[in-house]
Amino acid sequence: MTSAAEPVFRRAERADLPALIALFAADALGGHGDTVHPDAFARYERAFERIEASANDILLVGVLGGEVVATAQVTFTTSLPSRGRTNMTIEAVQTRDDMRGQGIGAKLIHHCIALGRERGAGLIQLMSNAKRADAHRFYERLGFKKSHAGFKMVLEALPAAT
Amino acid sequence: MTSAAEPVFRRAERADLPALIALFAADALGGHGDTVHPDAFARYERAFERIEASANDILLVGVLGGEVVATAQVTFTTSLPSRGRTNMTIEAVQTRDDMRGQGIGAKLIHHCIALGRERGAGLIQLMSNAKRADAHRFYERLGFKKSHAGFKMVLEALPAAT
Repeated sequence: MTSAAEPVFRRAERADLPALIALFAADALGGHGDTVHPDAFARYERAFERIEASANDILLVGVLGGEVVATAQVTFTTSLPSRGRTNMTIEAVQTRDDMRGQGIGAKLIHHCIALGRERGAGLIQLMSNAKRADAHRFYERLGFKKSHAGFKMVLEALPAAT
Repeated sequence: MTSAAEPVFRRAERADLPALIALFAADALGGHGDTVHPDAFARYERAFERIEASANDILLVGVLGGEVVATAQVTFTTSLPSRGRTNMTIEAVQTRDDMRGQGIGAKLIHHCIALGRERGAGLIQLMSNAKRADAHRFYERLGFKKSHAGFKMVLEALPAAT
């Protein structure tokens, strides 16, 4: 792994959407049914607007050579346990396939951690599919503890992409 | 387990705070450092105000015989994967120690699931401490799949309760 790649991290803009959708569509393991098919675009656009409208959410992109090469979303949630601590959740983390092994993902997570500190989060949390052994080692190297089990229940099957 | 207990579920109110804090303070396993000490109250109050102010968060209580016997917080997050799906996260789940084994926790989670459907969530997710084997069986019985690992990183140690 070299550390030469120095991506710039910033909030996602609407113009980043096609590149972001392509990142998720390329991820077969998650089984999230993402697609670059134009019929699905309006759904992503609505989601982007909701994320933008939420004061608790920040959608980030990592840009290198003018291209979106990585993304993550952070969500801030205050709850009562731990004396009313604010937690930051990281999700929807992706690095473009051909950009792996350059430390971009680690820089992205470090950027998220810095954002969490800036905003006063007392804890950062995330879930990773049980099958992603590489991702688990990655997060442990970055200082996360695999202390929890993650449970999911799908309520709505995805519509066909047509 | 009997199913006689029929709690009413509603949004938490400020007057519920002392009972809610007592629920979290009684939970030794989570190691969350919660306390009913009056010096800590202001922090819980600020957290309650933030939860109330967030359009994406709902703090629930289960009430039985006029007393708060259970609680959970749900957070709605829209993100890009799964074609812009809205996910609901359940956290800060507690049932009062002396009220266990009456199906109150299961009713609370069913109430959360119904809320998720009402608000158009496509997926419900939660994390549970790896040590809570009973909780894992509970969530699996309710239809959740333990498909993920949960990672945490503490940024801020709790202040002393004094």
